[in-house]
Amino acid sequence: STNTSEHSSGRAYADYSIFKGKAALVMTPLPARFSKMDSGGLKVDRKGVVLLKFMPAIGQRKYDYEKKQYFALSATEVGSLIGLGPTETCEFFHDPSMKSSLEGLVKKTLTVSPLGDGNGYFFNLSVLNAVQKTNERLSVPVTKAEFAVIRAACGFALPHMMGWSKVMQVQHPEHRGLLPGQRELKMVTDVW
Amino acid sequence: STNTSEHSSGRAYADYSIFKGKAALVMTPLPARFSKMDSGGLKVDRKGVVLLKFMPAIGQRKYDYEKKQYFALSATEVGSLIGLGPTETCEFFHDPSMKSSLEGLVKKTLTVSPLGDGNGYFFNLSVLNAVQKTNERLSVPVTKAEFAVIRAACGFALPHMMGWSKVMQVQHPEHRGLLPGQRELKMVTDVW
Amino acid sequence: STNTSEHSSGRAYADYSIFKGKAALVMTPLPARFSKMDSGGLKVDRKGVVLLKFMPAIGQRKYDYEKKQYFALSATEVGSLIGLGPTETCEFFHDPSMKSSLEGLVKKTLTVSPLGDGNGYFFNLSVLNAVQKTNERLSVPVTKAEFAVIRAACGFALPHMMGWSKVMQVQHPEHRGLLPGQRELKMVTDVW
Amino acid sequence: STNTSEHSSGRAYADYSIFKGKAALVMTPLPARFSKMDSGGLKVDRKGVVLLKFMPAIGQRKYDYEKKQYFALSATEVGSLIGLGPTETCEFFHDPSMKSSLEGLVKKTLTVSPLGDGNGYFFNLSVLNAVQKTNERLSVPVTKAEFAVIRAACGFALPHMMGWSKVMQVQHPEHRGLLPGQRELKMVTDVW
Repeated sequence: STNTSEHSSGRAYADYSIFKGKAALVMTPLPARFSKMDSGGLKVDRKGVVLLKFMPAIGQRKYDYEKKQYFALSATEVGSLIGLGPTETCEFFHDPSMKSSLEGLVKKTLTVSPLGDGNGYFFNLSVLNAVQKTNERLSVPVTKAEFAVIRAACGFALPHMMGWSKVMQVQHPEHRGLLPGQRELKMVTDVW
Repeated sequence: STNTSEHSSGRAYADYSIFKGKAALVMTPLPARFSKMDSGGLKVDRKGVVLLKFMPAIGQRKYDYEKKQYFALSATEVGSLIGLGPTETCEFFHDPSMKSSLEGLVKKTLTVSPLGDGNGYFFNLSVLNAVQKTNERLSVPVTKAEFAVIRAACGFALPHMMGWSKVMQVQHPEHRGLLPGQRELKMVTDVW
Repeated sequence: STNTSEHSSGRAYADYSIFKGKAALVMTPLPARFSKMDSGGLKVDRKGVVLLKFMPAIGQRKYDYEKKQYFALSATEVGSLIGLGPTETCEFFHDPSMKSSLEGLVKKTLTVSPLGDGNGYFFNLSVLNAVQKTNERLSVPVTKAEFAVIRAACGFALPHMMGWSKVMQVQHPEHRGLLPGQRELKMVTDVW
Repeated sequence: STNTSEHSSGRAYADYSIFKGKAALVMTPLPARFSKMDSGGLKVDRKGVVLLKFMPAIGQRKYDYEKKQYFALSATEVGSLIGLGPTETCEFFHDPSMKSSLEGLVKKTLTVSPLGDGNGYFFNLSVLNAVQKTNERLSVPVTKAEFAVIRAACGFALPHMMGWSKVMQVQHPEHRGLLPGQRELKMVTDVW
């Protein structure tokens, strides 16, 4: 059935991997997820992210998958990253246990700071775990060329993370099917 | 029928929301709308906009939906926004009642001006209503990171607002079906 | 039949129009046109352009369609336009009768030069016709905001004019069906 | 059958060609190639490239196809190219026989360096062949306008070379069908 073929097409996986001496950084984009409304329209159900995966090196071009650490960048964090000037630094703080009983016990900090020679950035992830009393640091130097790829790829990903790409592609043949709360929107756009 | 499935796919909704202490700013893109011509081709029937919705705060992360104010940015206004230098200001004036009997009675002014610290912009909407004798002001500070998202997302939205994205995606197998007034265009492009 | 529905979907039309006091400038993108090869693949048959249409004013917001003049920008000319620095000028020369018996008799020159206040560009088209002994000049001042739209829209159009967008979207499931002359290409890409 | 029509649609070919006095440079993008996983999902099987083909001139606008030389740019090399400042140089070294018995016998070097007048770049390919004891050099001056096209087209191509464009377009209706190794990923994104 059509349904089956949709399932079999499934997901697609692609990343951008930067393997360096002490650690590796693997970036993966995830688009916004939409759910169907009663009106038949689609709305963003979960915003997309650019997922960073850090892994420490355990040999030449070998990395310890078991010790991997994730950090998911939101749209605004991606905006901060791609707007970074050559001598600027940005820093993000995440609590992976937010709104759970473990809130505040694990603190993740991602710092992106310029390399000494002004030719790229350090991506530094620190994971402070108050329960296990550990503080892991994973640091990957990113060259200017690699950062140009990150900037272009993340700039491309942004409208997809936000769901804007789908909004722009869907046909809007008659502005029918407006949400109740959006009748005003129609009026406004009729007269702007 | 196919028709039904088209209807059920309906519209898609996504926005970019910036919630701040005194007000919130919600941006939503709307693509160009096309209508079918007798020749079977499609032409832009209504240009797209980026719709800004401002709402005043009425508590911590609570906003008064009833007092929302819209401001719809045209392609050229979006161009002005995304081309804004770090110390530049842009200002747009809209009359939501233009070409109606109420023309001139409501004046909307959007001012985007640099934040004092050179790290973002103030989005300030003023709505002057001569009938109700009110002057509402809604102001949202937008960080440099948030503005980078706005810049990337609006730059993405622009060709869709203008309808250029559809023009570029449609198959033009034989340059058949040119509009009457466009026979010259074909000639010209044949010999440029 | 499917064929009919393809025809009825036909072309799509969209432009970006700048109406000024003395003349109007209307920009329209045209994508690359592909033709089918014997192998079943598609190759670019005609490159796309951004078509500029100039019309002189004959009253307030009225323009003389009969006196319109076209100028079709190639990919490299679009590159020149979108890479223009704030104080730079670019100039293009076209002979619409090239390779015909009228070659050299009509000379079109498009000059894009900075506005005095450093806030946009003049688009100036000169059409010198040696047969009719006429020299028409059409000049449209383009604001910084309008030029930001042109830059974003033309930057979007470029890969479509070049045909790169289709190359990137088509499935290449098995690198089967390579052209005779491209067997080397496969070898090369296998070993780069 | 549907299968047949898929095959017949086949590949699409498009390039960007720069013909100069001593040599020609032809650029062609190749998207990432995906293969189907047992789970039904798709993963990048081979990353895309921007393929450069250099050919020496053998007459006015005639080039020796037999003496063509290829150089395939990876995503990071494309990043280096599009991030190049006006006075900067980048250089890439490829061994087309890497991991074969001929490793080290052929050395390809691509150097992109600014033109003397600061208005574009030299693309210089050197192919040193230790077996044939030859050292071929092919050099193409690229104007500022042509480089703006390369920058825009390669920036467009990048997410397609990386496979990110497909990841962003595929529907992810229920985050079902996660890979075994990605169960953590789901957990992480659930709580970031």
